[in-house]
Amino acid sequence: MKFARIGTPGQERPVVHDGDGWRDLSPLTADLDGAFLAADGVARTRAALAAGTLAEVDVDGMRFGAPVARPSAVVCVGMNYAAHAAESGSAPPERPVIFLKTPNTVAGPDDVVTIPRGSRKTDWEVELAVVIGRRASYLDSPEQARDVIAGYTVANDLSERAWQIEESGGQWSKGKNAPGFTPLGPWLVTPDEVDGAGTGLRLRSFVNGEPRQDSSTADLIFGVDVLVHTLSQYLALEPGDVLLTGTPEGVALSGRFPYLRPGDVVEVEVEGLGRQRQEYVAWEPEVRA
Amino acid sequence: MKFARIGTPGQERPVVHDGDGWRDLSPLTADLDGAFLAADGVARTRAALAAGTLAEVDVDGMRFGAPVARPSAVVCVGMNYAAHAAESGSAPPERPVIFLKTPNTVAGPDDVVTIPRGSRKTDWEVELAVVIGRRASYLDSPEQARDVIAGYTVANDLSERAWQIEESGGQWSKGKNAPGFTPLGPWLVTPDEVDGAGTGLRLRSFVNGEPRQDSSTADLIFGVDVLVHTLSQYLALEPGDVLLTGTPEGVALSGRFPYLRPGDVVEVEVEGLGRQRQEYVAWEPEVRA
Repeated sequence: MKFARIGTPGQERPVVHDGDGWRDLSPLTADLDGAFLAADGVARTRAALAAGTLAEVDVDGMRFGAPVARPSAVVCVGMNYAAHAAESGSAPPERPVIFLKTPNTVAGPDDVVTIPRGSRKTDWEVELAVVIGRRASYLDSPEQARDVIAGYTVANDLSERAWQIEESGGQWSKGKNAPGFTPLGPWLVTPDEVDGAGTGLRLRSFVNGEPRQDSSTADLIFGVDVLVHTLSQYLALEPGDVLLTGTPEGVALSGRFPYLRPGDVVEVEVEGLGRQRQEYVAWEPEVRA
Repeated sequence: MKFARIGTPGQERPVVHDGDGWRDLSPLTADLDGAFLAADGVARTRAALAAGTLAEVDVDGMRFGAPVARPSAVVCVGMNYAAHAAESGSAPPERPVIFLKTPNTVAGPDDVVTIPRGSRKTDWEVELAVVIGRRASYLDSPEQARDVIAGYTVANDLSERAWQIEESGGQWSKGKNAPGFTPLGPWLVTPDEVDGAGTGLRLRSFVNGEPRQDSSTADLIFGVDVLVHTLSQYLALEPGDVLLTGTPEGVALSGRFPYLRPGDVVEVEVEGLGRQRQEYVAWEPEVRA
C-alpha cells in the first residue's frame, strides 16, 4: 500500500492507494501520524480495503503533503555513502554519524522552497527515508528493526553548506534547519512493496533536468536495519518519527556543480517510492501585520 | 507568575502561582503547551488571576512535570561559557554553536534518571532554559527576542560523553538524546519575575550534596537575546520550543570529578527559577509482554 496526505498545508486529508486507485482514509483516521501507525493503522487500513468500505477519491491536481504528520523527531545519518564522504573531504565513518533536523523543516514533496535569507550555499541531498511505526528503544538486534518500520519514503535533506560547515563550530544542525528544508514524500510505501527492504533502490537527483546524484541504496555503508538498531541504543524512536539514511555523491558541496539559485527546479526520486519536484525562490520579508 | 504541570507523567495538570499560592489552570487550558502560549495564555492567566476565578490547589507531595508540554524542538547552544569551553578542550566560539535534542528526552525536574545501557560517561550540565512563546523566524534584532520569550526555567542537559565525543564522528547528538536526558523545570517563570532578563543569575549543580558547577549567566558568551535573534536566522522557533543556553565549567568531562553512577543524586538550580533533584539508577531490561 501507499499512504499519502492531500490538501492544503495543515489541512491534509489521509488517503491510501491499493494498487488500483486512491481511497479516502478519513473514516479510519483524521491524519497519518504516529498515533495512527502505533495503533495498528496499517493493518486496519488493509482490513478496510479488503472490506471495500473506503470510497474512491480523485487526487488529480491536489497538493501532496508530507506522508506523515508532525514527526516528533527527524533523525539523520551523515556520511553514509563512501563516495559522498570522499567528496565532502571525509573518511567513511566507522559508526553511524547522527544529527537531527527540527520537525518544522518537513514540507510537502513539491512545495516551493524558499532559499533562506542570506544563503549562498543551498544544496540538495536525495535520501531514502524510513518512517517508524512502533517505539524503538534498545532493540536487541538489526532483525528487530523490521518490526518497527512502518514504511519508506523519499526525502530531500536540504543543507546550507556555509552554515553547516563554515560557521557552525562543527555541529551541522545550523545548516540543516531552515524552514521547508526537509521535503518528504510523495508517499509512505509499506515494506511489502519495497524490494529488498530498501537495500537495492536506485536514487537520483536532477537540477533543471540535468542529472546530479545517481546511486543505489546498495552502497549504504550502514543499511536500514543496522541503522535503526544502532540508533535505538542512543535514543528512543517514536511512532511517526522519520529517519533519513544519508545521501550519495553528486551534491554541490563537491565543487562539481553550482549551488541552488532562485528559479532552479530540483527533482529527487527513489526507485519505487516516487519523485519530488521543487521550485526554488528567493527569500522575501513577510508582510507583518 | 510561575507556571507548572503537576501529576503523573502524561497526565499532568496545569497550575499557576500568583505569589500567594498555586491555583488550578485547567479552566483556561488542558495543558501548558505551545498552543496555549501562542494564544496569549499568559495574559489570559493574568486576567483570570485578577478576576479571582481560579481555585486554589494543593500541590503538596505531587510530582512536577516539565513546565511545558511537547516542545516541537529542544535547541541547544554549546560552549557558551568560556571556562567550560576551556575544560572541554575548545576555544570559545566566535558564533553560537547549535545542536538539537529530541523532544522525547524531556522529563520532570525530579524524575528518576536511568543511566543508559552501556553508558560509562553520563554527565550533568545545569543550564538556563528559555521557553518560546511566539513563532520566531528571521528576527530583525536582539531586542525583538523579548517579544517571543514566554519565560525561563531550569534544565539539566544530560550528556553521555563517550557517545557525544568519542563515538560520534564529531556530531554531539549521539550522546545527548537518551530517554530522560533533559530534566526540565520545576517552573516556567515569566520574564517580569526574572532579574535582568536572565543575564545575571547564579547557576549551580551538586552531586551527592557536593558542589560542582557554580557560575552566573552573566558569563554567557552569547546572551539570551542575542541567541534567540541569531537562532531565528537559521531555523524557525515555534511556540513551546525550548532553548538551552549552555553550561558553565564544573562537569565530569573536565576530569576533575567522576561520572555519574547508580545511586548518585544530582541537584541543579538557577537563581529564582528553582531546583531539580534527580536520583540515578542503572538501566534494566524492560519486561516485554
